[in-house]
Amino acid sequence: MAPQSKLDQVISLAKRRGFVFQAGEIYGGSRSAWDYGPLGVELKENIKREWWQSFVRGREDMVGLDSSIILPKAVWEASGHVATFTDPLVECTQCHKRHRQDHLIEAFAAKKNRQPENGMDDIVCPDCGTKGQWTEPQLFSGLMKTFLGPVDSEAGMAYLRPETAQGIFVNFNNVLTTSRKKPPFGIGQIGKAFRNEITPGNFIFRTREFEQMEIEFFTAPDDADKWFKEWVELCWTWFLDLGINPENMRRFDVPGDERAHYSAGTIDFEYKFGFQGSEWGELMGVANRTDYDLGSHTKGSGTDLSYFNQATGERFTPYVIEPSFGLTRSMMAFLVDAFTEDEAPNAKGGVDKRTVLRLDPRLAPVKAAVLPLSRNEELSPKAKELANKLRGHWNIEFDDAGAIGRRYRRQDEIGTPFCITVDFDTLEDNAVTIRERDTMSQERVSLDKVQAYLAARLLGA
Amino acid sequence: MAPQSKLDQVISLAKRRGFVFQAGEIYGGSRSAWDYGPLGVELKENIKREWWQSFVRGREDMVGLDSSIILPKAVWEASGHVATFTDPLVECTQCHKRHRQDHLIEAFAAKKNRQPENGMDDIVCPDCGTKGQWTEPQLFSGLMKTFLGPVDSEAGMAYLRPETAQGIFVNFNNVLTTSRKKPPFGIGQIGKAFRNEITPGNFIFRTREFEQMEIEFFTAPDDADKWFKEWVELCWTWFLDLGINPENMRRFDVPGDERAHYSAGTIDFEYKFGFQGSEWGELMGVANRTDYDLGSHTKGSGTDLSYFNQATGERFTPYVIEPSFGLTRSMMAFLVDAFTEDEAPNAKGGVDKRTVLRLDPRLAPVKAAVLPLSRNEELSPKAKELANKLRGHWNIEFDDAGAIGRRYRRQDEIGTPFCITVDFDTLEDNAVTIRERDTMSQERVSLDKVQAYLAARLLGA
Repeated sequence: MAPQSKLDQVISLAKRRGFVFQAGEIYGGSRSAWDYGPLGVELKENIKREWWQSFVRGREDMVGLDSSIILPKAVWEASGHVATFTDPLVECTQCHKRHRQDHLIEAFAAKKNRQPENGMDDIVCPDCGTKGQWTEPQLFSGLMKTFLGPVDSEAGMAYLRPETAQGIFVNFNNVLTTSRKKPPFGIGQIGKAFRNEITPGNFIFRTREFEQMEIEFFTAPDDADKWFKEWVELCWTWFLDLGINPENMRRFDVPGDERAHYSAGTIDFEYKFGFQGSEWGELMGVANRTDYDLGSHTKGSGTDLSYFNQATGERFTPYVIEPSFGLTRSMMAFLVDAFTEDEAPNAKGGVDKRTVLRLDPRLAPVKAAVLPLSRNEELSPKAKELANKLRGHWNIEFDDAGAIGRRYRRQDEIGTPFCITVDFDTLEDNAVTIRERDTMSQERVSLDKVQAYLAARLLGA
Repeated sequence: MAPQSKLDQVISLAKRRGFVFQAGEIYGGSRSAWDYGPLGVELKENIKREWWQSFVRGREDMVGLDSSIILPKAVWEASGHVATFTDPLVECTQCHKRHRQDHLIEAFAAKKNRQPENGMDDIVCPDCGTKGQWTEPQLFSGLMKTFLGPVDSEAGMAYLRPETAQGIFVNFNNVLTTSRKKPPFGIGQIGKAFRNEITPGNFIFRTREFEQMEIEFFTAPDDADKWFKEWVELCWTWFLDLGINPENMRRFDVPGDERAHYSAGTIDFEYKFGFQGSEWGELMGVANRTDYDLGSHTKGSGTDLSYFNQATGERFTPYVIEPSFGLTRSMMAFLVDAFTEDEAPNAKGGVDKRTVLRLDPRLAPVKAAVLPLSRNEELSPKAKELANKLRGHWNIEFDDAGAIGRRYRRQDEIGTPFCITVDFDTLEDNAVTIRERDTMSQERVSLDKVQAYLAARLLGA
């Protein structure tokens, strides 16, 4: 058997330990979406909380928003999504399966190391093997629709948002008025978005239902470049501060012809996920959306979304700098980056291989595990009591099943920073042994000091 | 002008101060959904965090989950939603508007104080006034559909979940295996759900897009009654502990013929929202779903969702006790309950009426406001510095616009527990005045003690 790639190991760990499950698995599952299990939901929440604190609550020039997923069709017409959020699809006339034309051509080029000379005539259907029997390409919308009200009609049709951004733009005036902020200021939002991807895949990397963390930062046009650079640095630093190895992240200055229709400049952050074929994948992007969005919605809605600067007497339509993070992609990057294999001493005086998720304690789904040395009528209640006390502050596990070494391994591989062992000495000295995940060093701590010990080391986690 | 009801005042405050905006307002808006502004998103987050800590992280017998919104059709067929999640609709043959038949009959009965003698023949169309020109009732599904993949076909059709619960049931085995919990244990989830309500209304009370906080608690059939009672009490206490006045909340034991198809017993909590017509509205419900769900999905999927108790050698399909909270309804109840009008001293030695949201500090969207006594080149930077320091821990506002009394009023009406005033004495004594929202009492606190002062009073908020 070929050795598993690191990515495969992470995916396997994520499924086995309850970070991520396939949505609707017992019904055959789908690649459209994934479910986040007990550990996944905690990790995801911790990423959200760090992001919100860093970029929204912690900044004087930011406020938050939570807009709806379903927005009227008119919003998506004005934003340009109805017209341009499309991909060219071709259908094989033999087997009637549809494919994205650009993906077929890319796959051909990657395999043969040249462009197809006779266009689609050279391209073989990946489903049935027929060569060159393709319909003319048709534009296919990436928007997902639904119907509101008592009839499935055009009038009741609405789209699920493909990005959280538009919910921010259409509320620009509302926020300006109620929060009394002035440009430069930004609005942050975390929420679900939906895109009808033709080929979802790579685990939680490309799905039809996903989560974003987006900032729309409004500035005078003259300051847009300055803020663009500033936000690129802030985002870069955020990932590094939370433990991402800078060697696994790179910037890609997206050329003009590859940028989205609204962008005058985009820098993507790519992370070395280790996919087959192309190792790197897009993690997030910072775009200069100019005055495209507020301008489009001014035209579309008839509501003036410009800003009047009373100090200078100037009126302008703010430029928008947009740092747009994939939440689930960020989670995947944190998992891949934290995944490590090293060695730990075993009970026989030798060493065993161990898997450890070196997650920043702020992100770790479980902050501490309380482990009675053995399942015992004196140790277990004492350990449970401690676990229940700590649960008032953090997410805590209690585990009394199996050898203590094996229980350490279980916690290491889900990234628990501290294991607290209640042993027979505890009954005498009212103290416990606290083991740190990465160094495996152990310290004896008095029971009444455990909470303070953790608080000092989990600092805001 | 008639005096505004308390509910109207709360709605007006919520819109004016940026708690809640109409979704897509600049495009004419919709009653399908609402957007949560800078204060609303913080209040909503605080409710979620309290709920998660009380019922998931803080309990040994609970774990969390975050499942997808879009689930395969097969899930909703097995759950009974495709067959039974329907309402009877009739169409006026004159104006072709559709209405829920049961709502029309209820409205007739409420107005005339009797049932219509000749059925629908007696009922006038509320849109065009034509009497008795109705089609036969047709069942209309409350499920909202969308299409996945490259063709809008039956095969790619999926439903947006009308409740988060089913995502929990279909993951029952996954959670059991990975978390190694055993009944009695529960799974908690917070997330969006979608129902194609024919008549959304009453502000954020009935919308097509909304948020739920749900617990599915799995227990041996014999213990179901005990856990049902236990969860009713836990939920009741949760609202009271967060400040809801028990006089504004009541229990309704739902009679058998009004319960959902899966329920063997339901207790609804109703809150006195103060709607026109009927003052009380459903806030949440606790249901005994029996083994209906795990049984249905065992049948539907072919995957055995029973539990084998190794200690007793017994196999059983767990019963499910479901406390299901409306998140946005809870938010509305907390707002209505906190809304108070009293009197505050004014600068002229008299008193002014003031509006104050007496929100529990844990729920308050802004924890403290830092206010320089006047906009001044010495006071403002000092106040900003303090605000920025406190922002590392809490959501903080800085406000230097207008008279200090007016700024207190602004904070009172959004429920900010503490106002911190930086005055000219501060420049000498390095101390500030901290004013408490409800008592309006003031205390002088040294600058280096402000953080500890707040921490002690905001306890985990």
